Amino acid sequence: MRLALDSTHDVGLVSWLESANDPSTDFPIQNLPFGRFRRDADDGWRIGVAIGDQILDLERVGLVPNADMHGLMDQQQAEHTALRRALSDGLRHGSDDAARFRNALIAQTAVEMGLPCEIGDYTDFYTSIHHATTVGKLFRPDNPLLPNYKWVPIGYHGRASSIGISGQSFARPIGQTKAPDAAAPSLGPCSRLDYELEVGVFISRPNAPGERIPIEHAEDHVFGIALFNDWSARDFQAWEYQPLGPFLSKNFASTLSPWIVTMDALAPFRKNWTRPEGDPDPLPYLDSVGNRETGSIDIELEVWLQTPAMQKAGVAGERLMRSNYADAYWTVAQMVAHHTVNGCNLRTGDLFGSGTLSGPAADQGGSLLELTLGGKQPIRLSNGETRTWLEDGDTVILRGYCERDGSRRIGLGECRGTVLRARAD
Amino acid sequence: MRLALDSTHDVGLVSWLESANDPSTDFPIQNLPFGRFRRDADDGWRIGVAIGDQILDLERVGLVPNADMHGLMDQQQAEHTALRRALSDGLRHGSDDAARFRNALIAQTAVEMGLPCEIGDYTDFYTSIHHATTVGKLFRPDNPLLPNYKWVPIGYHGRASSIGISGQSFARPIGQTKAPDAAAPSLGPCSRLDYELEVGVFISRPNAPGERIPIEHAEDHVFGIALFNDWSARDFQAWEYQPLGPFLSKNFASTLSPWIVTMDALAPFRKNWTRPEGDPDPLPYLDSVGNRETGSIDIELEVWLQTPAMQKAGVAGERLMRSNYADAYWTVAQMVAHHTVNGCNLRTGDLFGSGTLSGPAADQGGSLLELTLGGKQPIRLSNGETRTWLEDGDTVILRGYCERDGSRRIGLGECRGTVLRARAD
Repeated sequence: MRLALDSTHDVGLVSWLESANDPSTDFPIQNLPFGRFRRDADDGWRIGVAIGDQILDLERVGLVPNADMHGLMDQQQAEHTALRRALSDGLRHGSDDAARFRNALIAQTAVEMGLPCEIGDYTDFYTSIHHATTVGKLFRPDNPLLPNYKWVPIGYHGRASSIGISGQSFARPIGQTKAPDAAAPSLGPCSRLDYELEVGVFISRPNAPGERIPIEHAEDHVFGIALFNDWSARDFQAWEYQPLGPFLSKNFASTLSPWIVTMDALAPFRKNWTRPEGDPDPLPYLDSVGNRETGSIDIELEVWLQTPAMQKAGVAGERLMRSNYADAYWTVAQMVAHHTVNGCNLRTGDLFGSGTLSGPAADQGGSLLELTLGGKQPIRLSNGETRTWLEDGDTVILRGYCERDGSRRIGLGECRGTVLRARAD
Repeated sequence: MRLALDSTHDVGLVSWLESANDPSTDFPIQNLPFGRFRRDADDGWRIGVAIGDQILDLERVGLVPNADMHGLMDQQQAEHTALRRALSDGLRHGSDDAARFRNALIAQTAVEMGLPCEIGDYTDFYTSIHHATTVGKLFRPDNPLLPNYKWVPIGYHGRASSIGISGQSFARPIGQTKAPDAAAPSLGPCSRLDYELEVGVFISRPNAPGERIPIEHAEDHVFGIALFNDWSARDFQAWEYQPLGPFLSKNFASTLSPWIVTMDALAPFRKNWTRPEGDPDPLPYLDSVGNRETGSIDIELEVWLQTPAMQKAGVAGERLMRSNYADAYWTVAQMVAHHTVNGCNLRTGDLFGSGTLSGPAADQGGSLLELTLGGKQPIRLSNGETRTWLEDGDTVILRGYCERDGSRRIGLGECRGTVLRARAD
């Protein structure tokens, strides 16, 4: 259904807003992602759609009656499609409504972006087999991938309260670590601070407690995708994670990009989901082989680092790696079907993290843990600096975009966060 | 501060409401726990205080202006103390306000109870060393307790959306399991369904992101305690939990008792927190040795089982075990201090589970996993039935109460949930 591309996806469609037609913009008229913004701290959050370098204020243009993002996300697919059409019609070159729409624009530089919606529960998955294998090798050289990996879309619950928005900074976390030869642990600032390149998946329509979502309907419950950085304290993680999983090593901060790119906008960039030759077929409740509608999504992903030295030199950053979301072993639909197979209820606005999205090559690790081989091999930056782990003042920027012949390039914007020095108290 | 017992705790204090003076009530005038109720599904939730077999409607009696439980929980300790005094004064025998208060009563049997508040994030801890040791023995006979246990109050994030209220029933969950000798896993109903006896701890005042809560102020951020059953699918858990912890084995349902017994009400039942001889001192940020105010809490806990056969025979249930919350290795204050040491922000209404509260003796396991030695030794019930794991139609009832010479007994009410057969779809 989502693959029924329509004229809102046409590669030739242009807007009366010039910045939306810039070949380098993430937000041409074919994208139309949703977010929340405000003019200042006294203002309430408003729903907007990114277009070029502007934001269309949805209430002001009369397309949604209020600023209730959950209400918008919870609509039926037909309503989402109608809203997308109305936005596309109003913003396209030659629209009769151009004046009304122009009146509802505000510059992206003039506002503060918030979390796109309230997030009830956040679940982090582990869908990149390349990440799971590389990390597994660091701990278990002979048996890197656990026996459940190719059967179970592994996931665990994360912390919703500490999810922040692109542009955030946070103090290096404090926690317990224990050196292998130490008799006792000690408390101190994290010395192995890392990022994780992920995408975040937002749930649209809920399911009732006890009712599973079959894989063929899974994407009817998905609103769209943003970039997500699941910052990680590797030294805390090693000491705390047995037997119940990561906790304080992950919950001090996570960062989202502000724009949810809808599944409708991503429709031109779907791929058949396939498994490597020789891998087992998934259990039927997870099986969507050959179903392109619920398949993989071709999103190019990048991690950039801006060190304080680069900032001083006026350098915007250096790219550390690239990977593609289509290399994930488990799809969005599989995550939804698995999460609810036991009757667990999802709510509008819930967030799934994809897990670290590493590619198949050694230089495609989605975290420093992978790029530095567990901290044993620092990476060298072009200005001569090196990094094993993140240092105070470092800014990590995630970027993502979709490009395919015959389609207009669309982007996910950026997800940016800065590490500050640990608090003294 | 909370230990400054005042006249609201007097053992001799009685109410003009006769049912509050019944020696067996959980809700004498010394308790005054908070919950949310409604007369019917068309009604909004209202804040009430349990007293005897009645509920005092706080808005109707003019003590809180609206039904905002988060607003009430978020007040300063002085306001909580003043509210407790006002409730105690209005409900005590001889009160000038008796008529007004009587006017605001409604029978507990006449209402539906809801979750006491919206729960943003739910964290489950693992504070019983007896539980950790017994469960560890099942997996690692020679090395039952992991090296981090006596240093780290182990915890992990759980699912908030599927937390329900006492009286709930839920279908036996479906999930993946894999027999040790099977080549592949299969999907089917849980065959090792279990309960977990826990207490739930509600956060009152939030901390800002990045700001840790020192242990000496930890309980200023705690509103009170309820009973909590963290239902568990042991067969799913064994297959899925590596490397990131339990997920679908836990998130299909958890059940709370409806009344939050405040830290003020629990003040007479505090104990010094101590460690067993020879155990290491905790790191300073977790150290509250000798501080009775933030010490353990003497709550007697019980698990009861009512099978369908008992229900038919008119038997209310059979007690499976007893334990005491004071046997936990880590205290409420230690959980709060640990959770925030890395800057993780807690929000009003957040819930901590204590983890399964097993006692030191073999018959004090807080789950069937422990009582049946991992399913190897069924328990025999007095009507001749046996149980290894929960069967369809079984109802599990948690109870808790505090008793001490010189204080009026107070109770936590009950936390009741029923297992239904798995759904066919």
